[in-house]
Amino acid sequence: MKRVLISEIKNHMGKEVRINGWIHRIRKIGKIGFLLVRDRSGIVQCVVNTKEVEIKGLKLESVVEITGQSIENESCKTGIEIQVSTLIIISAVKEDLPIEINKESMDINLDVLLNNRVIGLRNPRINAVFKIQAALAQGFSQFLIQQGFTQIFTPKIVAEGTEGGTNLFTVKYFDKEAYLAQSPQFYKQMMVGAGYERVFEIGHVYRAESHDTKRHLNEYVSMDLEMGFIENEFEIMELETQLLRYMLQYVGKTCASELELLDTNIPVIPAEIPRLKLSEAIQLLGTQYGKENLEGDLDPEGEVLISKYIKEKYDSDFVFLTHYPQSKRPMYTMPAESWETHSFDLIFRGLEITTGGQRIHQYEQLKDNMVKHGLDPNKFEGYLSVFKFGMPPHGGLAIGLERITAMLLGFDNVREATLFPRDKSRLIP
Amino acid sequence: MKRVLISEIKNHMGKEVRINGWIHRIRKIGKIGFLLVRDRSGIVQCVVNTKEVEIKGLKLESVVEITGQSIENESCKTGIEIQVSTLIIISAVKEDLPIEINKESMDINLDVLLNNRVIGLRNPRINAVFKIQAALAQGFSQFLIQQGFTQIFTPKIVAEGTEGGTNLFTVKYFDKEAYLAQSPQFYKQMMVGAGYERVFEIGHVYRAESHDTKRHLNEYVSMDLEMGFIENEFEIMELETQLLRYMLQYVGKTCASELELLDTNIPVIPAEIPRLKLSEAIQLLGTQYGKENLEGDLDPEGEVLISKYIKEKYDSDFVFLTHYPQSKRPMYTMPAESWETHSFDLIFRGLEITTGGQRIHQYEQLKDNMVKHGLDPNKFEGYLSVFKFGMPPHGGLAIGLERITAMLLGFDNVREATLFPRDKSRLIP
Repeated sequence: MKRVLISEIKNHMGKEVRINGWIHRIRKIGKIGFLLVRDRSGIVQCVVNTKEVEIKGLKLESVVEITGQSIENESCKTGIEIQVSTLIIISAVKEDLPIEINKESMDINLDVLLNNRVIGLRNPRINAVFKIQAALAQGFSQFLIQQGFTQIFTPKIVAEGTEGGTNLFTVKYFDKEAYLAQSPQFYKQMMVGAGYERVFEIGHVYRAESHDTKRHLNEYVSMDLEMGFIENEFEIMELETQLLRYMLQYVGKTCASELELLDTNIPVIPAEIPRLKLSEAIQLLGTQYGKENLEGDLDPEGEVLISKYIKEKYDSDFVFLTHYPQSKRPMYTMPAESWETHSFDLIFRGLEITTGGQRIHQYEQLKDNMVKHGLDPNKFEGYLSVFKFGMPPHGGLAIGLERITAMLLGFDNVREATLFPRDKSRLIP
Repeated sequence: MKRVLISEIKNHMGKEVRINGWIHRIRKIGKIGFLLVRDRSGIVQCVVNTKEVEIKGLKLESVVEITGQSIENESCKTGIEIQVSTLIIISAVKEDLPIEINKESMDINLDVLLNNRVIGLRNPRINAVFKIQAALAQGFSQFLIQQGFTQIFTPKIVAEGTEGGTNLFTVKYFDKEAYLAQSPQFYKQMMVGAGYERVFEIGHVYRAESHDTKRHLNEYVSMDLEMGFIENEFEIMELETQLLRYMLQYVGKTCASELELLDTNIPVIPAEIPRLKLSEAIQLLGTQYGKENLEGDLDPEGEVLISKYIKEKYDSDFVFLTHYPQSKRPMYTMPAESWETHSFDLIFRGLEITTGGQRIHQYEQLKDNMVKHGLDPNKFEGYLSVFKFGMPPHGGLAIGLERITAMLLGFDNVREATLFPRDKSRLIP
């Protein structure tokens, strides 16, 4: 008999079906066993007459194959129950579960949860997080493909850092020393210049930052895009507005049950996401919240407060901060009037999820700007030389996949939205 | 005036249009300049009266903005030409191009091409390769999402290797030593057991193999999938057959002009891809081609010959080889009768592009098999412990993205299908 997914039983009512899954809950009243069985699509109640069907050895999380008749039962959550004819334990549970996972909400310390990540993911609410994350990534790809972008896969083992050599993980590469890429920045720009004009990449990036915060990971998934023939950074911001709208709609469409389980509402993106110059935001934080001593960037508290302000004033969960100072932006950032740049951050519910902007496309200007930033142009030869041969005006951005997931779902720590986080103290599982 | 893509000019015939792109060819007859201008969508001829429009300083590959009237001209390849009113050089070319890229076919040494990769990619034929590669990856994702798979992103910085510690790149991870993942094997299996049942990942993997061959890369893109509740490895092979059919159809549908440019025909996948036991294939190579001394696997010549045989006999570009010996397969491979395993390779036009099979799902069997393979189960604690808590029967496969691209397009060296190859001698660009 062919397996039926639990979500599909409703199409086989009154018939004998075979299901496969994990034992989610066991309750026994007299000789009748009530089992909840869980597969990737849902949970169903199975009723066993233990005089006829053996359930000895059955434990929570045993992997089973069950056949039985599907009948309507209005007292069940799903309105369906299976009257079990056969039950086989395909894969037994050998030890007590390290964490209790079969409750609706898991009130458990994050470290313990991450130490037992694989088992923890069986909890439907935790499981749902990464289905939503996958949908965010798919929405990102789909929208950009529709807009004429080409997906690229660029090296993560690199000879030089994009930001001038700090925070790099070192790799022993045969008899050489190499590094793990901090971002696909140079490659995505070069691919614009290679004639693709519009490119995106979804891939891991690496930051050897030793601080251990709720917002940082040493390995994370960066959703990058870069596009040529732009007028200015505002085109990139407009593209991101449409992109986010698409991504969120895609999640809403494909993850309705996961969103319901997590009690999450998809935020509405206004026709135009509010924009503030960084300098205005800093001033505003001073006058509105008495926050002082910010220079050239917001701190985490500043990001939270500016989001609060924007939410109250414009009812938007997103805000663009623009015109970051040259001193705080990498050497490839297009300078603007006086000390500013054509760059922006996007803050979502109190956390920066995107940095982007227009890049320098003229060879001499880029070379000069490297020197201004205290960098040696000779060290960026491979990247810089491409600008000698006709580079269009261009710009782009990156969205942190774990961060946008965490903010969408209201998590306090980005690790909750990371399958297997890597930080200074965490290298396993 | 809004930019019009070259492929869209046909919708603006007789009108003034603005295009942006690179100068692909320059020819001057008297006072008339004939320019070919290239953007991401195609090439168009632009005619300039140099008495009226200045073209001084214009070189091959200059980035330009041109406005002019689009008219029909049957003598042009595309039937369209632009009569230039204005021409601005947006980004000049500073030096002679390092390689000549504006010929239809580039007769150039692969090393030289890879040293000048970004400029080389502007050649339309080379450019097309990576649009096709992107489509292969998208086809892979789309099909699997339709089949209920969840995309996952698993760590590439790992504490242990999947194959027992050989061929690993070492990363200095704060005060610890870590490795670059050789494959997402353990993680994808664990994610099946985490309740997702069906998962896929498209990401980089790393092999510190020092041999320098046409078929190997030290960093490549692995398209992995893993699925639970299977009967045997043949289910995985059937899924791969459908998957490849979808991927190739997707490429056919979305990359028609690229395929035409590369003179490539999409192979037809038969209703069932021919299958041979590895032992039968080895015997056959002996009797048909006098090839001896193969043990437990084919060598590169063997893969070419068995493909030739299958192509002649069954008109298939693909062949599954099955039942690889236990001694040649990793410890997680499900053993079959006597010395064989429930595993397979897929050979495409003479090159192995997939390894797959059923995995062991019972804790004791896996632990015992580690010992049989000379491995210490304690070193695989994180992976192994998951099998104590109910792991469904499962299996999966991986397809090398660069390899399938190379074989589809008839390349001799997998580097031709790699954007920025990493090998023992190549760490830049």
